[in-house]
Amino acid sequence: MSSGNSFHAVKTEEELSLYIPQEGLVQLRNPHINGMDEDVLYHIALSNKSNNLTEMFQDVKFVCFGGSPTRMHKFAEYLVEELKIKIPAGLTVTNIAHGSDRYVLYKVGPVISVSHGMGIPSLSIIFHEILKLIHHAGCSDVIFFRLGTSGGLGLEPGSVVITEESVDGLLRPYMELSTLGMILQHPSKLDQDVARDLVSLANSEEDGYVTIIGKTMCTLDFYEGQARLDGAFCDYNEADKMAYLSRVHKRGIRNIEMESLCFAAYCYRAGIRGAVVCVTLLDRLKGDQITTPHDIMEEWQSRPQKLVAAYIKRKLNI
Amino acid sequence: MSSGNSFHAVKTEEELSLYIPQEGLVQLRNPHINGMDEDVLYHIALSNKSNNLTEMFQDVKFVCFGGSPTRMHKFAEYLVEELKIKIPAGLTVTNIAHGSDRYVLYKVGPVISVSHGMGIPSLSIIFHEILKLIHHAGCSDVIFFRLGTSGGLGLEPGSVVITEESVDGLLRPYMELSTLGMILQHPSKLDQDVARDLVSLANSEEDGYVTIIGKTMCTLDFYEGQARLDGAFCDYNEADKMAYLSRVHKRGIRNIEMESLCFAAYCYRAGIRGAVVCVTLLDRLKGDQITTPHDIMEEWQSRPQKLVAAYIKRKLNI
Repeated sequence: MSSGNSFHAVKTEEELSLYIPQEGLVQLRNPHINGMDEDVLYHIALSNKSNNLTEMFQDVKFVCFGGSPTRMHKFAEYLVEELKIKIPAGLTVTNIAHGSDRYVLYKVGPVISVSHGMGIPSLSIIFHEILKLIHHAGCSDVIFFRLGTSGGLGLEPGSVVITEESVDGLLRPYMELSTLGMILQHPSKLDQDVARDLVSLANSEEDGYVTIIGKTMCTLDFYEGQARLDGAFCDYNEADKMAYLSRVHKRGIRNIEMESLCFAAYCYRAGIRGAVVCVTLLDRLKGDQITTPHDIMEEWQSRPQKLVAAYIKRKLNI
Repeated sequence: MSSGNSFHAVKTEEELSLYIPQEGLVQLRNPHINGMDEDVLYHIALSNKSNNLTEMFQDVKFVCFGGSPTRMHKFAEYLVEELKIKIPAGLTVTNIAHGSDRYVLYKVGPVISVSHGMGIPSLSIIFHEILKLIHHAGCSDVIFFRLGTSGGLGLEPGSVVITEESVDGLLRPYMELSTLGMILQHPSKLDQDVARDLVSLANSEEDGYVTIIGKTMCTLDFYEGQARLDGAFCDYNEADKMAYLSRVHKRGIRNIEMESLCFAAYCYRAGIRGAVVCVTLLDRLKGDQITTPHDIMEEWQSRPQKLVAAYIKRKLNI
C-alpha cells in the first residue's frame, strides 16, 4: 500500500501548493500571526512580546518531542554530555516552560527537548506552539523528532522502530481533524531520507537489539483502540484481538502508539523534515500488560535518545 | 436537539443492556479482568497484586479529574480543609502515582483527586485505570467529576458551565472510537440529576459570577479544532470563524474544551454518575488568546473546585 495512492481528500488549490519541504526560515501556514500585536504561547507560558524569542531560540536546529517530562529532562542532560556543551559553573539546564505545568521545555545548544504528554490532542497543542516559537525566533532548517515508547508487533521487546508511514486504527494514512464543521484529512507522510539516515546509524550486532524501519499504527486510545483485553471496557475476545493484530502485522505495521499520525501530518503540512523513533516495550502478539522491571525499561527508553543524539552529532560534525 | 433521538449507532444486544446506572459495587464491562493473575495499572504505577487497593481505596465515593497536575494537588489540599480531614502530625497529602510521571493522584478522605492531562486520549487512559482501580478496591456508589477550564461562548470570562450534553466539533453527541477495525460510537450522555444538584448550590449574586447548565463542545485540537485564528496552521478567516462559532452558539453550546465527550461516554458506559464543571477563561466570540493575569486566572480556576467541594460536603452532611 503506498501512502500516496491510497490518500483521497478534498483539498483547495492553495492547500495542494503548501506541501513542499521548506528551505531556510521556518514559515507559518497562517497569514494572521504576523499581524498580531502579541502571540501568547499559552501552554508553555512564553510570548513573543514578553520574551526575546530570537535571542533565546534562533540557533535551534533540532526539536525533540517525547511523551514523558522526566524522560525529556533526562534527554536534555544526556545531550549536554554528548554534544559537549559547556555550562558555566553554578548553572544547570532548567525547564523554560516552568510558568505552566502542561509541558516541560529544555534547550541544549541547538536542540530543544520538549514533552508532549499522551495522545494526539496533547501533541497537537505543543506542536502548534513550538512551530510558532521557532518561527518567531527566526529559526531555519529545523528537523523534528518524536522519541517515544510503543507496543511492538512481532518484535523482541526493546527493539526500536523508525516510522516509515503512520496510519490510524483503520490503516488510513492521514489524520482527520474536525475544522469549522468539516472533517479535513491531513496526509501523514514522513521524510524518508531522515528515516534512512537514522537506521544507518544503528548497528544491531553492537547494540544488542534491532532497529528497523516499519509502519506505525497510531490510535486515540490505549486499551480498546489498541485491541487490549485488559481495559475497563472490552466487548471482544482473545480470538478477535489476535485476528485483528495479525492482520495489521501482515500489512507491515511493526508498532502501535498514540501520537505519530499527528506528528507526521503536522510536519508534512509545515514543510518540516520529521522522524518518529520508538522503542517497543512489549510484543502485542504475546500480551497486553507492561510488566518489565523498572531498570530494564529505563535502559530501553534511552535507545531512541541514543539514536537521535547520534544523528544530531553526525549533522553537527561532533 | 435531544441526544436520545439524534444518536444512531450499530450496537449488539449485549451492549444495549449495559447502559443502566449501577447501584452498589463498581462493576467492569470486561469479563477478562477478573481472570487475570495481576492487573498492572501502568500509567499510575499501581497494581492489584503489589498494592492492597482495597485497604487504600475502598472508602472512595468521589473521583475528581482535572487536566493540570498542580491544580489537582491544590484541590486535594483544599479538600483537606473543606472536609475537615485530620492529618496526623508530620504527614501531608502525597502523590500516590509518584512511580510514574504521567498523572498525579491524591486521596483525601472519600475523594480521589487525579490529573488527566490534555485531550481525549490522555483522559481515556486514566479513566480506564481509575475505573479498574475502584473496581479492584471494591468501591460502591462512586460519582465522577471533571473540573476543567474551557473557552466560553457569549459568557463573561470566569463564568462556570455545568455540561448538560457533550458534543463533538460537528455537534454529534457521541464519541467515535476505532476498535478492531470498526468505528464504534459511544453516546456521551451525562447524569442530569447531578448537574441540577450542582447548579442549585451556586448563587450567582453572592458568587459574583454566573454558573449555568449548557451544552459543551469537545474537540481533538485547541487551535483549528476550536476555530482559532492564532495557531501555526490556519486556512480560514475571521468571517469563517465567527460564522461557525455563532452557529454553534445558537445551537446552545456555551463552552468548548477537549475531554468532556470521552468523560461523558465512559461514565455512561460504566454506569457511573458523572458531571463536567468548567470555568470559561475567555469569550471565544470576542477573541482567541488567553491573556488574563495569572492571579485572576488562579481565582477563576478555583471556581469549579469550590462548587464540587460544596456538592461533596452536602452529600457527606458536612
